[in-house]
Amino acid sequence: MTTWPFGDAKDDIGEVINSIIADVRQRQNGSVDPDGGKPGAVIYIPPGDYRLRTQVLIDVSFLRIEGSGHGFTSSSIRFNVPEEQWPDLHELWPGGSRILVEIAADAGHDESAGAAFLVKRTGSPRISSVEFSNFCIDGLHFRADGSDLHPENTYVNGKTGIYVASANDSFRFNGMGFVYLEHAVTIYNADALSIHDNFIAESGNCIELRGWGQASKVTDNLIGAGPRGYSIFAENHGGLLITANNVFPRGASSVHLRSVTRSSVTNNRLHSFYPGMLILEQNASENLVAANHLLRDREPWAPFIDVDNGRDDLFGLLLIEGANNSVIGNHFSEVVDSRKLRPGGATPIIIRLAEGVGNYVANNHTVALDVRSTSGDSAFDAQVDALLATAATAPLDIVTVLVEPSSSGNTILDSGTDAQVDLDRTVNAFRATPGIGS
Amino acid sequence: MTTWPFGDAKDDIGEVINSIIADVRQRQNGSVDPDGGKPGAVIYIPPGDYRLRTQVLIDVSFLRIEGSGHGFTSSSIRFNVPEEQWPDLHELWPGGSRILVEIAADAGHDESAGAAFLVKRTGSPRISSVEFSNFCIDGLHFRADGSDLHPENTYVNGKTGIYVASANDSFRFNGMGFVYLEHAVTIYNADALSIHDNFIAESGNCIELRGWGQASKVTDNLIGAGPRGYSIFAENHGGLLITANNVFPRGASSVHLRSVTRSSVTNNRLHSFYPGMLILEQNASENLVAANHLLRDREPWAPFIDVDNGRDDLFGLLLIEGANNSVIGNHFSEVVDSRKLRPGGATPIIIRLAEGVGNYVANNHTVALDVRSTSGDSAFDAQVDALLATAATAPLDIVTVLVEPSSSGNTILDSGTDAQVDLDRTVNAFRATPGIGS
Amino acid sequence: MTTWPFGDAKDDIGEVINSIIADVRQRQNGSVDPDGGKPGAVIYIPPGDYRLRTQVLIDVSFLRIEGSGHGFTSSSIRFNVPEEQWPDLHELWPGGSRILVEIAADAGHDESAGAAFLVKRTGSPRISSVEFSNFCIDGLHFRADGSDLHPENTYVNGKTGIYVASANDSFRFNGMGFVYLEHAVTIYNADALSIHDNFIAESGNCIELRGWGQASKVTDNLIGAGPRGYSIFAENHGGLLITANNVFPRGASSVHLRSVTRSSVTNNRLHSFYPGMLILEQNASENLVAANHLLRDREPWAPFIDVDNGRDDLFGLLLIEGANNSVIGNHFSEVVDSRKLRPGGATPIIIRLAEGVGNYVANNHTVALDVRSTSGDSAFDAQVDALLATAATAPLDIVTVLVEPSSSGNTILDSGTDAQVDLDRTVNAFRATPGIGS
Repeated sequence: MTTWPFGDAKDDIGEVINSIIADVRQRQNGSVDPDGGKPGAVIYIPPGDYRLRTQVLIDVSFLRIEGSGHGFTSSSIRFNVPEEQWPDLHELWPGGSRILVEIAADAGHDESAGAAFLVKRTGSPRISSVEFSNFCIDGLHFRADGSDLHPENTYVNGKTGIYVASANDSFRFNGMGFVYLEHAVTIYNADALSIHDNFIAESGNCIELRGWGQASKVTDNLIGAGPRGYSIFAENHGGLLITANNVFPRGASSVHLRSVTRSSVTNNRLHSFYPGMLILEQNASENLVAANHLLRDREPWAPFIDVDNGRDDLFGLLLIEGANNSVIGNHFSEVVDSRKLRPGGATPIIIRLAEGVGNYVANNHTVALDVRSTSGDSAFDAQVDALLATAATAPLDIVTVLVEPSSSGNTILDSGTDAQVDLDRTVNAFRATPGIGS
Repeated sequence: MTTWPFGDAKDDIGEVINSIIADVRQRQNGSVDPDGGKPGAVIYIPPGDYRLRTQVLIDVSFLRIEGSGHGFTSSSIRFNVPEEQWPDLHELWPGGSRILVEIAADAGHDESAGAAFLVKRTGSPRISSVEFSNFCIDGLHFRADGSDLHPENTYVNGKTGIYVASANDSFRFNGMGFVYLEHAVTIYNADALSIHDNFIAESGNCIELRGWGQASKVTDNLIGAGPRGYSIFAENHGGLLITANNVFPRGASSVHLRSVTRSSVTNNRLHSFYPGMLILEQNASENLVAANHLLRDREPWAPFIDVDNGRDDLFGLLLIEGANNSVIGNHFSEVVDSRKLRPGGATPIIIRLAEGVGNYVANNHTVALDVRSTSGDSAFDAQVDALLATAATAPLDIVTVLVEPSSSGNTILDSGTDAQVDLDRTVNAFRATPGIGS
Repeated sequence: MTTWPFGDAKDDIGEVINSIIADVRQRQNGSVDPDGGKPGAVIYIPPGDYRLRTQVLIDVSFLRIEGSGHGFTSSSIRFNVPEEQWPDLHELWPGGSRILVEIAADAGHDESAGAAFLVKRTGSPRISSVEFSNFCIDGLHFRADGSDLHPENTYVNGKTGIYVASANDSFRFNGMGFVYLEHAVTIYNADALSIHDNFIAESGNCIELRGWGQASKVTDNLIGAGPRGYSIFAENHGGLLITANNVFPRGASSVHLRSVTRSSVTNNRLHSFYPGMLILEQNASENLVAANHLLRDREPWAPFIDVDNGRDDLFGLLLIEGANNSVIGNHFSEVVDSRKLRPGGATPIIIRLAEGVGNYVANNHTVALDVRSTSGDSAFDAQVDALLATAATAPLDIVTVLVEPSSSGNTILDSGTDAQVDLDRTVNAFRATPGIGS
């Protein structure tokens, strides 16, 4: 490690990091050894608050930026505490090795301009082995968006934590914390990417894998986006492994895959307050959705009680538009107040096959409960009540699997009784879950 | 990082860490920046032996305590080597960045008093983002407990590694080693907790999640408790993800969930010497148990050959008391000496539904072997023998699924033949695994 | 940490590390405290290039070698770029904390002689808690092997990254990068080993667990071996957990288990260009293969277009020789050009049970597509084309499960239609996946 050429890390860590990168680049130019590389550097961020006023531009491979604390604490809960009570609070802000993103940005224009860290390089080879580890990126505040929401609850501020604009190889994100960003991590054209063991929450969108990509993994993260954003999104990826994540609300979706193929969504715990938790759309094909736990229940917290993602209860908790996917051995819990179903009186749909052929849906178990709110929605108590399933409940009628006429050639096994599965048996294969006394 | 105000880290690292925390707290009080936080600190423990005579009290958020080595080695094996051979051993003790817990404690009184690290704070918000990483907590010795066991084999010493007494958010435990503690990690009221990639073994109890909690994960750990304790225990948790753990003996149970709901136990490798490996009790509901490998075989090691957890072979390897759980695609291996079954001549039970309705049990495969001990139980050889399944075996009669009269409305599919499943077909749904020639 | 006694880390880091280990060993000898251990040390490798001319010998427990960057970049792609274009490339070599392995070795002789790091110790106890973290081991070059392959494409150079020759306990490999080694990680006789979150690619063989072992885990790695080698190999292991890995081509196999028992291969994403992706051989028994995604498609890259692993399409993507295994809820995609099947006109086999009794194969879904090459195999474009499944395809006839006469007593459920499963129904149990209109 070196001392940086210039700048004040507390006042603008962006300027300081850029000066270190410039120094690294200059030192690399001197290498003449035939096997000698340009091995990069590690930039260490000690615990502390660091304002970032200048965007960091990373255009060298093998750079590792490392802190000593992911520093997450809930800004969302704190902003909804009356301000006169703030002096009594132990902390008001996230901590750890904390970057305070002060970049002025307008989401309506170039989105990359609002990124604290921009990774971008032209030419060959692709930029490799950039690593982000164990520090906190805090967007600080959201802002009014014209809705009825309190400005700090909009999830809008035009700020992105890390934006990777160029094709990249073998990047790693480990142990990071992201909070109060409109976009936490946006990555284009990833190969062999690893996003592992991070805390990415209270951000409009958490993980967005755009462009295309292959052979990557999103594993073992704690994730929760805002009500209009993505918790995990990917498009045009092949061989993506999404596993062992605990994805909590709100998130318009928990996992949203567009034209993704030959990928896995397995062994995750997914929790949402809205339909459309897991979406495989636009010819998403040959994917495996297995051993996941999906819970959709009711928003318990007053500030968001009337917020939703715009999808009604006929959308499906899991939507499939594409061919030859496998949906095996998942548990679905649908826990709602039947008086609030949309459209009114609707029978909610759990798995909906809207397009495509040859999907295989087997051994999925759905639990559906009609829960009447009795606790007056007093935020945390209601949340505990919902989590512990201690509220009074009644059975709820559902369609466990709907195969629309635009989809055919599918196989549906042991994923609902005769009465719960809605499909054309002349063009699909079907075996009902046996009924009692069978 | 700072040099600490006072104390000798080798003689009492507890006093030293407390002095650093006091220093951190004092520095935080000076912050007046409106967006300025109290970002915390990292305390680094280099490799070495550090006695801890004073309990560490953590009452600040964003503290990271980090070492350079989990330092596990088997004290259990070493204590069972005759002491006259000790001079020939390369090492006698665990290592790495090693805390030697010297706290005098009596398990009969306040359990938190015996903790090396106590996390406790009143007021709001909950304490956040405390991280423990990559060091070793060694309880050093067990003590006589009145049983026939050698004192060093009792798993009793009144010592706890880390005890989190207050509600907490986004804590992380990574890369730690725990050895010879009565309780390794005890955490009350956890939100978004991550216990990931640790080595927690040769402790009376390994992970205990008490009180209540939500949206947490226990992933990718190597774990093994003592014969009377918990390897992984949780109560009143919702949305807990327990996955990718390798849980080895002894442990009275491998995973024990009490009143836990909407959680996942998926994709673990569980190994026990006793019945009652995986317990979902006291209205544990809507949980997913999928893609786990459960092996129950015989104790091979002489010092523990007559020790068990008090449960007989009718208890079930997996016990369910609760509603609407899913048990899908698990492998069970029951490998026992039929002459030692309890009660004598019993037909062992694999999955037992004792209470609750609406559980879904599908596509579970059970292998049952009667193995006669031939190796004279010579510890390691027998262990290898057992592990490699090279002992002579014969088929063993079992009940793969027992649904008791107190449970009904369940669905049991392809999890045993007609002869292997015991249930009332008038109040449950059933499809037998087809027999040969079907 | 200490400054090392002698040597130039840039010229021969092996000599330097050995001198540090000698220093550690000497300091340990002074310990006389009755509870006092020999806690080991951490050796830190900053980012940079370090030649290793002297093999490192590790014979102390509790040693952690840690860098600041896994440093992977594709040497394979770079070596296949015409050398006259190299001056235009940003980097030519891997980076991070990079060890350049300069050991002269001949694979024909003692394989351990070619290891950069050799872990070896006689006596008791077993060596414990050695940790390798976050640095890069680069074998630099492959060499001509008499085949038609370009010397840099042979995956042969007699070099091993880390070779653990002695029985060991609680070792950890985390965040490492391995590239251009004939063998990346070779470990004999492992107990409670953890290989987690590494990048091990462009090596002849990636992970080889030899001898025997127990209670270990290989989790959350990005892995890809050469066309003649193992990506993940284990023999005589019990209780091994292989999960959450993303294993990409080439690799003669993705996971190869020999006489492994009571282990799990669950929840992985496996991708290969050849049959024999997942092999359970030589009495591999009581293992669980569940929730994996297996894709076999065509080699798209010109330099390897005619390379294969020598197995024809009747070998099976998954081969089982052993008893009482469970194969549940996996997705298989077979995407090949039917004109290139071997033997010509063969009907490819997906799951083949060749020996053993009592295996349970349920709820596996196979997709089979005949893809005609149209893109002229222009490397990367074809790769993207294949990954995104955008090529023109037609259905392909397959045998989803073949149970050979030498295997019996198996149960095959919902893993293929009547026409797709080939077995003797008088000695096996069978239920076909229902057909359309059933």
